[in-house]
Amino acid sequence: MEKEFTRHFHLTGGETGPEGEMPLALLADRVIEMATLHADSLGVGYAAMIKENQAWVLSRLSIEMERYPKVNEGYSITTWVENFNRRFSERNFEIADSGGNPIGYARTTWAAIDIASRGVGALDIVTRLADVIADRQCPIDKCPRLADPDAGTAEESFHTFTYRDIDFNRHVNSVAYIRLLLDEWPLDFHDRYRVRRIDTVYLHEARWGDTVSLSRQSDGPVTTIARIASADRPHTRMRLVWEKRENDMNN
Amino acid sequence: MEKEFTRHFHLTGGETGPEGEMPLALLADRVIEMATLHADSLGVGYAAMIKENQAWVLSRLSIEMERYPKVNEGYSITTWVENFNRRFSERNFEIADSGGNPIGYARTTWAAIDIASRGVGALDIVTRLADVIADRQCPIDKCPRLADPDAGTAEESFHTFTYRDIDFNRHVNSVAYIRLLLDEWPLDFHDRYRVRRIDTVYLHEARWGDTVSLSRQSDGPVTTIARIASADRPHTRMRLVWEKRENDMNN
Repeated sequence: MEKEFTRHFHLTGGETGPEGEMPLALLADRVIEMATLHADSLGVGYAAMIKENQAWVLSRLSIEMERYPKVNEGYSITTWVENFNRRFSERNFEIADSGGNPIGYARTTWAAIDIASRGVGALDIVTRLADVIADRQCPIDKCPRLADPDAGTAEESFHTFTYRDIDFNRHVNSVAYIRLLLDEWPLDFHDRYRVRRIDTVYLHEARWGDTVSLSRQSDGPVTTIARIASADRPHTRMRLVWEKRENDMNN
Repeated sequence: MEKEFTRHFHLTGGETGPEGEMPLALLADRVIEMATLHADSLGVGYAAMIKENQAWVLSRLSIEMERYPKVNEGYSITTWVENFNRRFSERNFEIADSGGNPIGYARTTWAAIDIASRGVGALDIVTRLADVIADRQCPIDKCPRLADPDAGTAEESFHTFTYRDIDFNRHVNSVAYIRLLLDEWPLDFHDRYRVRRIDTVYLHEARWGDTVSLSRQSDGPVTTIARIASADRPHTRMRLVWEKRENDMNN
């Protein structure tokens, strides 16, 4: 049982965003994939959990990047478990360039739930994680408490989730909320600003056909807080910290 | 220079669609990625082409699947060049299960264009393909001539391309049109029918912010023809051949 689990990737042209870099949504996909692969290798993955009617549900995701992999660049992701308790497991990630130098980090919090009750799952499986708790530090801040945008002044738009948004669990994919939020800005804004850090808190899963409101409030171009909600329940709270690309052109 | 180029993949839980299978859009992504990787390895990829102000543009894509890879299943894609001429190169694909048994095929047609003029590129680079033409057959039909839906009776919807749709070339990604079309059906239709075959003809590239009409016309649940167009120019013509999932549950 390996406490640290590393995979090497290569950013292909087809995966690359319009600024010649890895899209944040793809990075979030990869982070979640790495969590899945490591859990599988530790015997606490989907196959083991479903036998006990349990599943891992992503509860919080934070990613903070010094820079993003560029087109045709190799990169690696390393993941390790920081700790767990009866309700949550905390799993961290380092994203490194092809020379092994860190270019960013991610933190995730996962809940083991009972699929039938949607409540806290049994502890038996999760305690297998005790043997793989790693000492390694993750230098980025934990996901903060996220406020809701101010209902009076926030910008609001409406969206309906479609087939592309639905994953194997038959809920809206965790990354679909990130794509929805990033789509709120025009291409020329993304050309000028990149996301330095994203925090996402997952509350209630959305389903196919759900129409949601996306409200967002930006403190200048520096920070955006957002909320995606159906009429009867919130799905996510999010925060983006933007940075101007011009500061970073020599990377 | 290898005439056939194979990569092995594994369908992770996070990549899997709501029916427990590989989404068609992801398969289209992988097919395009394999074309890119093989072209790179042959010295006719993006890096070599851009030096001559040229690029490969996808002109036609057909995929026909007996079945799709399932969650946590390994699969491979093999690609080879069937032929080329001054204007087009034809590249085929076999998708196989982890035992090497074919489960589907794809055909693509690529145009080498001059980036500045958007016209036919110089032949110098493309003729390097002469050494890698493979004898291997591709058992699926070539992409047929696709008709436009009937303007009077087709169902029509409108969409605006957003940040997620834009790729490294700063145009709408080839697969974005496929996602847009598949989103026209509700989840419960996809649960009952899978795409046996898709044909896509790419006409003019769309850009960020373009609002397009998607018109589609279905011959019962068996075949759909569709067209995605801006007011002034068509972007794609498409055809889907559906098959009932119930016929195929033992795969």
